[in-house]
Formats: sequence, C-alpha cells, structure tokens
Amino acid sequence: MLRLRFLGIIFILSCSQLSLAQQYKKDSAVLRQISNHVLQNYDCYKDLEQLCKQIGHRISGSVQAAEAVEWGKKTFEKIGVDKVWLQEVMVPHWVRGEEEGYMLSHKNHKTTMTISSLGNAVGTGASGLRAQVLKINHIDELKKLSTIEVQGKIVFYNFRFEQSNVNTFDSYGPCVYYRWGATSEASKKGALGVVIRSVSSAYDDKPHTGTVRYEDHSAPIPAVAISNLDADILEKACNENAQVQFFMRTTCQMLPDVKSYNVVAEIRGTELPNEIICFGGHLDSWDIGEGAHDDGAGVVQSIEVLRTFKRLGIRPKRTIRAVLFMNEENGLRGAIKYAELAEKNNENHILAIESDAGGATPYGFNMNMNDAQEVKVKSWKTLLAPYGVYHFEREGGGADIGPLRRKFGTPLMGLMPDSQRYFDMHHSANDVFENVHRRELCLGAIAMTHMVYLASVYGL
Amino acid sequence: MLRLRFLGIIFILSCSQLSLAQQYKKDSAVLRQISNHVLQNYDCYKDLEQLCKQIGHRISGSVQAAEAVEWGKKTFEKIGVDKVWLQEVMVPHWVRGEEEGYMLSHKNHKTTMTISSLGNAVGTGASGLRAQVLKINHIDELKKLSTIEVQGKIVFYNFRFEQSNVNTFDSYGPCVYYRWGATSEASKKGALGVVIRSVSSAYDDKPHTGTVRYEDHSAPIPAVAISNLDADILEKACNENAQVQFFMRTTCQMLPDVKSYNVVAEIRGTELPNEIICFGGHLDSWDIGEGAHDDGAGVVQSIEVLRTFKRLGIRPKRTIRAVLFMNEENGLRGAIKYAELAEKNNENHILAIESDAGGATPYGFNMNMNDAQEVKVKSWKTLLAPYGVYHFEREGGGADIGPLRRKFGTPLMGLMPDSQRYFDMHHSANDVFENVHRRELCLGAIAMTHMVYLASVYGL
Repeated sequence: MLRLRFLGIIFILSCSQLSLAQQYKKDSAVLRQISNHVLQNYDCYKDLEQLCKQIGHRISGSVQAAEAVEWGKKTFEKIGVDKVWLQEVMVPHWVRGEEEGYMLSHKNHKTTMTISSLGNAVGTGASGLRAQVLKINHIDELKKLSTIEVQGKIVFYNFRFEQSNVNTFDSYGPCVYYRWGATSEASKKGALGVVIRSVSSAYDDKPHTGTVRYEDHSAPIPAVAISNLDADILEKACNENAQVQFFMRTTCQMLPDVKSYNVVAEIRGTELPNEIICFGGHLDSWDIGEGAHDDGAGVVQSIEVLRTFKRLGIRPKRTIRAVLFMNEENGLRGAIKYAELAEKNNENHILAIESDAGGATPYGFNMNMNDAQEVKVKSWKTLLAPYGVYHFEREGGGADIGPLRRKFGTPLMGLMPDSQRYFDMHHSANDVFENVHRRELCLGAIAMTHMVYLASVYGL
Repeated sequence: MLRLRFLGIIFILSCSQLSLAQQYKKDSAVLRQISNHVLQNYDCYKDLEQLCKQIGHRISGSVQAAEAVEWGKKTFEKIGVDKVWLQEVMVPHWVRGEEEGYMLSHKNHKTTMTISSLGNAVGTGASGLRAQVLKINHIDELKKLSTIEVQGKIVFYNFRFEQSNVNTFDSYGPCVYYRWGATSEASKKGALGVVIRSVSSAYDDKPHTGTVRYEDHSAPIPAVAISNLDADILEKACNENAQVQFFMRTTCQMLPDVKSYNVVAEIRGTELPNEIICFGGHLDSWDIGEGAHDDGAGVVQSIEVLRTFKRLGIRPKRTIRAVLFMNEENGLRGAIKYAELAEKNNENHILAIESDAGGATPYGFNMNMNDAQEVKVKSWKTLLAPYGVYHFEREGGGADIGPLRRKFGTPLMGLMPDSQRYFDMHHSANDVFENVHRRELCLGAIAMTHMVYLASVYGL
C-alpha cells in the first residue's frame, strides 16, 4: 500500500513535471515567434520614424502634441485592437520663445553660448539679464554663503555628471537636483538667475533642458542650461577671474492650461478580462530634438506589444492595455489622470510596465513589487535569457505608472536598456530618430511583449 | 578531544573563509579602481581617435599599416611598460585600385552601383567585365545548375543577413560563406564574375568588403560586394526580367609580400614571470572606413590594459602581454608568426584573450578551454557582474589567438560586446571613429583589464 502510494506520488510528480516542461516549451516557442516577428518587420521603428519626422518634438499643449494624440489613436485603430479611447486631461502649456546667451570675461570679451531654458521656467523679459557669475560646484558651497554674497548675481551650478558609474542613471540622480531644485536655493539668497552645467554625459555643445521647480517661498527666477563644453569655458573663466559676467535673454512663459489626452488601447482578456496588465511610455517630449529616445521609443514599443499580439493571433487570458501618457515631462498630469480614472472605474491593474529609459539594447527590468511577485517574475528568467534580458533589480517602475502604485499598490516594472548613450541625448537636440538603432529598439519592444505575454498567462 | 578537534576545524574554516572574503573584497576594490580610472580618463578613446584620424584605414602592406606599427610601439613606450618589441612578418599586399559598377536592366537602363572588391580578389582588367546576371539566393540553387546555365554569366549571390537572430554573429556565419567560398563554386561552373549582397545588417548604400578565397582548382574571377539597397534593386530587376546585365571594372591586384610587424608589449610578472597572459586585437584593417570597431577597438583596449596596470601601480604576479597582431583581415600571418615565435622561445601562455568583435558595451566572454578552467573563470562572475559582464559561453576565442590553441592547447577567451550595430559597420565605410561610443569602448577595456587582472592573480 505504502509502495503503491509512493509510486502514485512519483507518477503525479512526473505528470506535473511533464506538464511544466510542455508549458515551458510552449512559452519558449511563443517568445521566439514574438522575437522573430518584431525583428523581421520592425514596425516599431517605422512608427518611430513617423512620430519623429512627420510630427517632431511635442511638448504638452503644443500643436505637435495634439497631432501625436491623433497619430497614436489612428495607429492603434489600424492595428485593429479591441478598444481605443482618449482620456481627457488639462496640461500645462509652457512655450520656449527666443533665447540668447553669452559670457563676458574680465576684458569684456564676449563668448556666445547656446542656452536652453529649463522647462516651466520664467523668462528674463525682452531686455535680458546681465550679472556677475557666481560659480558653485556643489550646493553646500552656496548654503555657506550669505545673502550679500549671492544677491544680484547669476549662480552657475557647475556640478558634473559622474563618468565613473557604469549605469549612467546612477549619475543622473545627483545632477538632477541642480536642474530641479537648486534654482530656488539660489533665488532665496537673492540670485537673479541660474545657469546650470547640462545634465549630460556627452562632451559636446548641446545644452540639455528639463523641468525646474520653484518652491513656494522663493521668487521664480530665470534658469537655463549650457552645454558641457560651454560650461568648461565658463568654469575656466570663473577660475581665472572673479569678474565674469553672463547675459541671458529668454522669452519663455507659461500659458493657460490646454486640453489634451492620454491615448489608451487594449485587447480584452479571454478568461480574466478584469485583470489588467498595462504598459506604456509618454507621448509628450521636450521641445528640442525629436523625443526619439525620450520617449518615442517607449511609445512605439508599447504600440508594438499590441500589434505583435494581433499579428500573431495571440489571445491573452488577461486584458493587456497600452497607455501613451501625456505630460510626463513637465507635469505628470496624464499619469495622475490615468490613476484617477482607474479608481473611478474600479479597475484592477495586476501589473504596470513602463519604458522610459531610451531605445537601446535592453538587459533587464527593475521592479517595485512584493517578494512573492518578485519570485514569480524571476521564475521567468530562463525564458528571457536568450533575448539578453537577465537582470532584475529592486526599486524602480517609472514616473507615469507611479501613481498606480501609490493609489492601489500595483506592482510596477521598468524596462532597463543599456544606459551608456542615453544621457548624451536625453532632453537635447541630440535626441533624434537617427540616434535610435533599429535592432536595439526592436529588442526593447520584444522584452516588453515577452513580459506582457508571461504576465498575461501566469498573472502576478 | 573530539570536541577540540571539531572546534579546530571550525576555526580553520572560519580563517579560510575570512581570508577568501578579504581576498574578494580586495579584488573587488581593484576592479572598481580599474573601472573608475578607465571611465574617468578614457585614454583608449583618445588613442582610437589618433589611430583612426591621424592614420586611418591600414590594410596589410600599406603605408598606413607601417605607420600604425610605429604608432603602436610609441604608444606602449610612452606608457612605460617593461618591454616593447616588434615581431617581423611578411604580409600580403593587396591593393584595391579603381572601381566602377552598374546594372543594365532589359531596356538598357543604367543604374550605377557602388561596388567594393572582395579582399584578395583579382581585378577585371582595365576594360571591365559585362555579362548577364544569374541571381542565386542559396548555394544549393547554383549546385543544381549545369555549367551551360552558368558559364559566361555574372553570378549574383543574393543571400540575406538573417535579421531574426538576437546575436548578429549567428547571422554572420552563414553569410560569410557567400563572401569567402562561393566565388570558387561559381568559377568552377564557368561564371566570369561574382557580385554578392553585402554581409551587412544595415539597409543602406554601403558595400561591405572582406576576403574571398579561391580554391586551388578554380580559376580566380573578380568578386565584388554591393550594398543591401543596391542588392534590392538588382534582385527586383532580376525577378522582373531574365536579361539583366551587370558591368564591373576593378583594377585591384595582389602585389609582392611586404615586411611588417606584430607590436608586442609586456609587464613582467613579479612571482611567475614565465606564465604569460596575452591579449590583443589586430592592427591592420580593411581599406575602407577607418577600422574603428574592426579592430581599432581591440587594439586600444589591449593598450589600455597595460596602461591601467601602470597608472594604478598594479604589479602583476604573472606576465601580462598585449599583442597588436598584423594581417588578421587577409592572411592571418601575424597570428601564425606569433605562435611560431612562442614555440621557438619555449613560452608558456596560460591564457589568451582577444577583442575583435567591436567596441560596443560588453556583456561577457566566450571561452575555448577545458572544464576545470571554465569553472575557474566562472567563479569570478560575481566580481564582474557590477560591470555588466555576466555571460560566459563555450566555443570561441578569436582568429588571432587560434594558432596558440592549435599549437599548445592554450585556453582562449573572446570579449563579447553587444552585437546589434556591429555588422552595420564591419568592413565598410561606416566603420569610423564617430560610430564608436566613448563609454562603451571604455567598458570593453575595463572588461579586458578585469579579466587579465583576475587571471594574473589566480592563474588558469
């Protein structure tokens, strides 16, 4: 009896193992089909060319942003998904206007520099702003200075992008403070304006923009970025003489909010339609360059997930939904609206995935979820390894899916592409279609489609 | 007694574990130092700029190849390594000459195409060669044809680079046959010349060259490559009409052998100087583009290994030796000479590492060694993981270090960089300095230096 029972257990184990092996083989075959389809057709690359070259950059509130909404909707409709809709949202409408900048060294020698207003910044007024430069390498230096030492000056934040980090996102974090928060610190001490060394890993002549935040109790003052090469020149001049002046003229301004939209599309789940897996990128971009890596890549990869399911005739068990978020760059209004509507509609998101780190070769995902969910995702590692996706790390997600976690505790994932080139281009005129590689972009779309597929089969 | 002995064992285990942990910590710190040094100074990138922009392409036997030898020697001397020397070797001297090509469709409409003679090929003679095109998509098609059907024609090998492979080297292999071996098959059936679709992952107008091999019993006939875009045009014309003609005029020729050199430099081991770890790339390149990825990258990364040891004051236990091989592209004479001299001098190479797969972000190494050696290398994985180096696969090494294994059974390793862009540029005018990324190149140099460091400490 005992022996029979023992054999029975072995038999059951064998059956379940066989079934696991069969399932693995089936998943493996589907993942291969997905990869072949995307690499052979590279429709996401063709989509990106349209978005970048027919529409171009598309800051929130702009005509191009409205065109991008229309384009996104039509692209989903052409694919023939189950449902496409727009989510209305009011977005800020910041416009750059004219820009002019130069440095005046102690002998009144003028060196013209390309400046780029930080997003949401106030302008200088038509006549511009000229003042002595106060070079600050680290915020602690400014904090030690008295108001008398700062007031009436233009603070030059000369904080450098650390080159020794292997993952350039580790260098981005510390730099971003100087773009996002440090202007208010200067303003509180009476500075008239701020110039920052661009948050950029490239040694070139392109300034990189990005949002500045004015704290409630500080006067908003003009803030601009200059390129790393120009920052070197300004730094050298400051080191040689205390009397360096900077002139900036910017006519940027914040106009009234504009009506815009998130673009959403889904394929309904056949068995568990109320379990939603959403994934996306942001449709808006900065107003220089073409928003190719940031975040045209995430947009077209998300579209490609749905296209690939449709083309290959994969009917997902759970609902899979692509979201093209509006206004990630200078407001996050689309992301907040999406989460609000999810709450209002009692939706159950079992996973949200974001691609907003560029279109380079992916190597993994970051994760913001509980331990059991992490274990489940990591159990898929051997299936994903043949596609170069091997790295899974804690903490992450993405700006646009963040509100879902804060509201519902939704597990989040973020695609991690190779980071070496990203901050050469990010928020600058370098971020154009030509700097995205067809195969690399496709591999990102494949990684997203694979993850969505596995989550749609196994849940989370 | 028993208890004391038991405690003793625990004590010994703890000591050895502590020591292992300390060693790990020390190695980990050295690896970090190496990485910081290379990323912050990026001397290998500056070297590559010199090699590509001051010298340029450098096919064996050319003036530029001689300049590159001189440059390599001086660069090592400036670093201040223990010993720099040249290994004399006679190399082939193939020259490209003039090139002209066009397609004639059935209505005698002329479409000019950029052609690139395959390396070592014979020319057409001054008046060129014009003949009907026979399109062959796969070699099996040619094999089924009779001599009558082939003779007097120009065979167009229209074999495509497979886009669905994630690792593009998997696509390279099958294509290379059409460049290397298929010309002789056409010649045996009486073809007058061969045009191949470039071995290229890019859809652009650049032809990719590479060596053709004439079998002993086949007449050498002219063989040229055309770009993927031109191949599409020729393919379409052939599909539409059987009477398409092709004209090619090439004045390439093989001149008498020229004296050249491998450039070798080493830092002697402090404890086991007779155990040599060698690593290298090839100094020669094709005569179009600048040989930036192929193999300027491998050259400057190998130089960087020695520079980094010197700059950081790391004295290796075993001898570490960089070799800049001559004539990898169209003869492999330098590699053969290196192994011959190693035999003559009774040298003991415990490991040879090659970097000849481009300057993109590295993710691992391939290995050609025995099981115990593989286990040892893989025991270093956790040390290398923070630098994105995680993948170790069987089979590999490299063309230039191959003779060492064949002669002595030396364990081999090959650096594996991301392969997505490599075959867009390989052997073409696209392979220029501008297409190498500073940080990516540095990460390859770091991976090489790390591996050399670990092998120098632990042997193999």
